[in-house]
Amino acid sequence: MPLSEFALIDRYFRKAGAMRSDVHVGVGDDAALLQSPSGSDLVAAMDTLVEGVHFPHGSPPASIGHRVLAVNLSDLAAMGAQPAWALLALTLPKIDEHWLEEFTAGLAALARAYDVALVGGDTTSGPLSVTVQILGHVAKSTALLRSRGRAGDRVFVSGTPGDAAAGLAIEQARLPASCDPDGYLRKRFLYPSPRLALGECLRGYATACIDVSDGLLGDAGKLAHASGCGVDIAFSDVPVSEELVNAVGERRARELALTGGDDYELCFTVPPAEVDRLRHNLPPERWGYCCIGTLRESPGAAVTDHGNVIEFSHSGYDHFAP
Amino acid sequence: MPLSEFALIDRYFRKAGAMRSDVHVGVGDDAALLQSPSGSDLVAAMDTLVEGVHFPHGSPPASIGHRVLAVNLSDLAAMGAQPAWALLALTLPKIDEHWLEEFTAGLAALARAYDVALVGGDTTSGPLSVTVQILGHVAKSTALLRSRGRAGDRVFVSGTPGDAAAGLAIEQARLPASCDPDGYLRKRFLYPSPRLALGECLRGYATACIDVSDGLLGDAGKLAHASGCGVDIAFSDVPVSEELVNAVGERRARELALTGGDDYELCFTVPPAEVDRLRHNLPPERWGYCCIGTLRESPGAAVTDHGNVIEFSHSGYDHFAP
Repeated sequence: MPLSEFALIDRYFRKAGAMRSDVHVGVGDDAALLQSPSGSDLVAAMDTLVEGVHFPHGSPPASIGHRVLAVNLSDLAAMGAQPAWALLALTLPKIDEHWLEEFTAGLAALARAYDVALVGGDTTSGPLSVTVQILGHVAKSTALLRSRGRAGDRVFVSGTPGDAAAGLAIEQARLPASCDPDGYLRKRFLYPSPRLALGECLRGYATACIDVSDGLLGDAGKLAHASGCGVDIAFSDVPVSEELVNAVGERRARELALTGGDDYELCFTVPPAEVDRLRHNLPPERWGYCCIGTLRESPGAAVTDHGNVIEFSHSGYDHFAP
Repeated sequence: MPLSEFALIDRYFRKAGAMRSDVHVGVGDDAALLQSPSGSDLVAAMDTLVEGVHFPHGSPPASIGHRVLAVNLSDLAAMGAQPAWALLALTLPKIDEHWLEEFTAGLAALARAYDVALVGGDTTSGPLSVTVQILGHVAKSTALLRSRGRAGDRVFVSGTPGDAAAGLAIEQARLPASCDPDGYLRKRFLYPSPRLALGECLRGYATACIDVSDGLLGDAGKLAHASGCGVDIAFSDVPVSEELVNAVGERRARELALTGGDDYELCFTVPPAEVDRLRHNLPPERWGYCCIGTLRESPGAAVTDHGNVIEFSHSGYDHFAP
């Protein structure tokens, strides 16, 4: 006999995630009842993953559970916020208990790692799609916005973008699996790490911040646009992993780093006078970020390679692009 | 040329909903930045509507926009909470600007009516599905829960349940349109009214409350179960509208009222000693509620008609029922 919706919520979701003392009522009533700390702003984001659009058909359920929370945590990281609570809307074509167990395990492991309680949501039947809504906090008036960059600010990115785009291409057999012998690139797509600790620390240094989900070039361009600026990126300064270079070569690796997607790294800006303090207090070799360019007064986003401007036909992922 | 995701959010959602001074950052950054009032608990709920499951294919887009917010507002009403902010996750098979205009108009009109700001969300491509996450507030420790009812408490319901189930049946041509000459029943399905004012006032009287979304009998049973009780409902006391009686006859009307769905009324319990004060301060003829039964010690949910127990094969909507 199939599980009812109510039994499903009870079995899989009532105790998934962290236990937090600021949850008065979690899963199981009409709504969750939560206690916001005083002196903080509430931070809220929501992201959906649709099968066949954001993850391939037949993706590991644990990866889907991990990713749908990770992409939301990444939004909070970009605000410099600490996560607290999540709600889950899960639309399933049918009840598959094995799938649900793995999905919940993937979601719950990441939730516990970041002390996120699962406090509510909805399960419905329909084509496979997962939405998470995340709530968190940031000390009043200290959140990182996209819009506070200034011309002249240095532009940084964390980690090694491009890995996840290559990992997805391997998952979809658009790249041969042999170019990812250790599964590193696939893991970067399937189990991204949200940069929450970095985001929180950047509040003392960054003027603006965005999470890199749709491609570094496009997302740096969005940050620049929101700040009333443009951005110059030096092609040779774009960081790429050894694994990605081995898989696709150095030039293609940098192109993927600029135009791929699903990285969930942070792109942020720091005034030139603050860069030394940033590097001293948050050593880049430990925190894993590097400078890739500069905000400029004139609008747009340009990538230059030894003085030549490189054209990109695809500067970021757009779900509805023709 | 189709709209990009970014242009779409900008055109349709950036200014939908109410303007509120407690929104520091709304649509357009990585996350929304919100100011919770002190002395309040935060209340959060999330509901999804899937085409072909929660609304028929080809439903009026304005109704879909209205309903997805209304079902969430109804969850807040059941907690006695005031709504403040909403996030929207919209999954669309294609960009249809006419559809988007009507959808947004339906959503925005209801949002403004209840002073709800649309502060964020996500648009993705895929099979039509809409998720809203709602946030609101209730004075600390005054929220209505499902679990605080006691045996002996009187059970009440607002409005006239069953109308929406008949309206949906007419929309789907399972009932002839001729039995709804004024379109009253269809309107009750397409544009439900969340009972926010009633929910807020009930905080001084009700021991427990639930919103009636999956059928009155099933939802009253859930309230009773959460309160460690059972429930007795008097068939002849179940309120039904004249329009519903005209459409399907009195007996079938009461059956629909008990087992239909999509009502978004409130079912609540009041101790016998408080019923007079409730009726005096919230006159039922003005607030539109009536007594339908009593919480009992023994578990389960029973409907009696002149002493005989009536059996129901379908006691509430379950999305995954066989």
